[in-house]
Amino acid sequence: MAELRKNPLTGNWVIISCKRGKRPLSFFLEEKRNENEEKCPFCEGNEGTTPPEVFSYRQEKTAPDTPGWWIRVVPNKFPALSSKGQLNRQKKGIYERMNGVGAHEVIIETPHHVKDLFSFEPKEIEKIIWIYRRRLIALMKDPRFEYVLIFKNKGQKAGASFSHSHSQVIATPLIPKDIKEKLQSSKKYFDSEKKCIFCEIISEEINLKKRVLWDDENLLSFCPFASRFPYEMCILPKAHCSDFRKIDESIVKSLAIMLKKCINALNKILPGISYNYIIQTSPFSKSNLKYYHWHIEIIPRFTRIAGFEWGTGIYINHVPPEDAAKHLKKGIKRTKK
Amino acid sequence: MAELRKNPLTGNWVIISCKRGKRPLSFFLEEKRNENEEKCPFCEGNEGTTPPEVFSYRQEKTAPDTPGWWIRVVPNKFPALSSKGQLNRQKKGIYERMNGVGAHEVIIETPHHVKDLFSFEPKEIEKIIWIYRRRLIALMKDPRFEYVLIFKNKGQKAGASFSHSHSQVIATPLIPKDIKEKLQSSKKYFDSEKKCIFCEIISEEINLKKRVLWDDENLLSFCPFASRFPYEMCILPKAHCSDFRKIDESIVKSLAIMLKKCINALNKILPGISYNYIIQTSPFSKSNLKYYHWHIEIIPRFTRIAGFEWGTGIYINHVPPEDAAKHLKKGIKRTKK
Repeated sequence: MAELRKNPLTGNWVIISCKRGKRPLSFFLEEKRNENEEKCPFCEGNEGTTPPEVFSYRQEKTAPDTPGWWIRVVPNKFPALSSKGQLNRQKKGIYERMNGVGAHEVIIETPHHVKDLFSFEPKEIEKIIWIYRRRLIALMKDPRFEYVLIFKNKGQKAGASFSHSHSQVIATPLIPKDIKEKLQSSKKYFDSEKKCIFCEIISEEINLKKRVLWDDENLLSFCPFASRFPYEMCILPKAHCSDFRKIDESIVKSLAIMLKKCINALNKILPGISYNYIIQTSPFSKSNLKYYHWHIEIIPRFTRIAGFEWGTGIYINHVPPEDAAKHLKKGIKRTKK
Repeated sequence: MAELRKNPLTGNWVIISCKRGKRPLSFFLEEKRNENEEKCPFCEGNEGTTPPEVFSYRQEKTAPDTPGWWIRVVPNKFPALSSKGQLNRQKKGIYERMNGVGAHEVIIETPHHVKDLFSFEPKEIEKIIWIYRRRLIALMKDPRFEYVLIFKNKGQKAGASFSHSHSQVIATPLIPKDIKEKLQSSKKYFDSEKKCIFCEIISEEINLKKRVLWDDENLLSFCPFASRFPYEMCILPKAHCSDFRKIDESIVKSLAIMLKKCINALNKILPGISYNYIIQTSPFSKSNLKYYHWHIEIIPRFTRIAGFEWGTGIYINHVPPEDAAKHLKKGIKRTKK
């Protein structure tokens, strides 16, 4: 089983996954892998090559793990965290560890070998978003888990192992440090200013206009003021809401269109770009927070992280977010002609 | 001039470098660049292609920016931060910014087109380390700077633009968040335990042996307990010392040998691997800290950072550090036969 270890200095946890430790060269083989598309384990007809499905939207009277599905959720074959066992948290001297208990699922977004979300119909993306919510609700019932991250790795540079369009879900037995920090700093702001910092960001961005991508009655997408990466984007719900599980039909419809617009714009200016997106909701134990909004970060992956970033946490971004917003909006305009 | 922007939520600063913002496609061109070795601006004879040198170790009676040098320090031609101007820190509503004032230098480690440190003689590496110290001392005299990071990007995957062996120095007008956090948590440990956590780590690792790589009377190298990356290594001074500027001849001799051993071992098991190393010293304003050690982190770059890591700060490491230490030591043994 994998192990979670706490850095005694920074307090950050790390997942040590022992299984592959004896094969250092496998990393290089992976880099050079040329995926055989015919054998894609996520394509309809190849259901037998994945672990048995956890959930699916499928045609009536079709059996699990057979064709006839639109979206399939399966456990990750090489999970970062395993759903079996107990935590057994231990501290020996300065070092703290626990068992790598959690969940790691793959959401296969289509039975066809489609590679990116922007070729989906908004209706199809809506279904994927509903599945995100469903897995959040299902996994929060396990008392061993404290947080669930939903994320997408698109393209090899973003860490994807398969090109077939998919998202992932990882449930962790602790609240990750990055989430904790966002909660702490937004609470600090609320305590001193009596306002939610996310609500403030929304009104400031709408007021300034120059970093806004698109907005409707439910959502705002924009390039953040202190974007770490060129063309980084953020999607926020306009109405105050900390918990992604509370999304309703109207939000889901908006979000499907907004996600498609963002990914589409990115692909217009940087065709075939690798990217990650992550959904950062409040932890299960902290619902209805006055100071936090759930949000989605979209991170294009084409600049390299070098020694300076590792050593300081300061990122160097060559595209000011005001320019990024302009480029992204132009991209989308061009396609409409 | 570049701009520093503070993320209102996380408190992290970002460098927005405007110059290249209008050329989004240049990133892709860079990726595909096939370096013309004959035109390497770091090779002897091509001194005219870099900005004028800041410092060099060179033969007597040779002029600056001409051949005859062993190590040359030049300003970075495309600096992340610029040495001209004042900070002009401003806060408008929730958003805070300042001018990108700092220094960004390149240390060209050899006049010959040698690509990695492990082919250097320890004597040559000693000279490079003395230059690290010299630049730290020189840059701390500028009252606009709060911190200096010395780092190396080796290989394209580690963010290097040139294959010719070099290090970099960046002076920042603030103490980076990652350094602040390490200072805070080590101080917290000291306040509660009355001991330096780095001293504790050293004695614990020497006691346990299983993660130790090499040690001598001055230094310890090991794979950290909560390594984020496969084959991550750390070098610590055994005697308590927070400030890298305080290194003496004995430490420099040890460090040259230790660095060569670490990089050599890495290259034995993963030939040609890209890596970063970073030297984390105490900030200028905080010398002689009882709770901090200067240290060097060596980070091999062959796993991809994906959505989970971006969304949580939790890294997934497939090689337990105990195995990594074994592999690295075996690698070096093999070469001795």
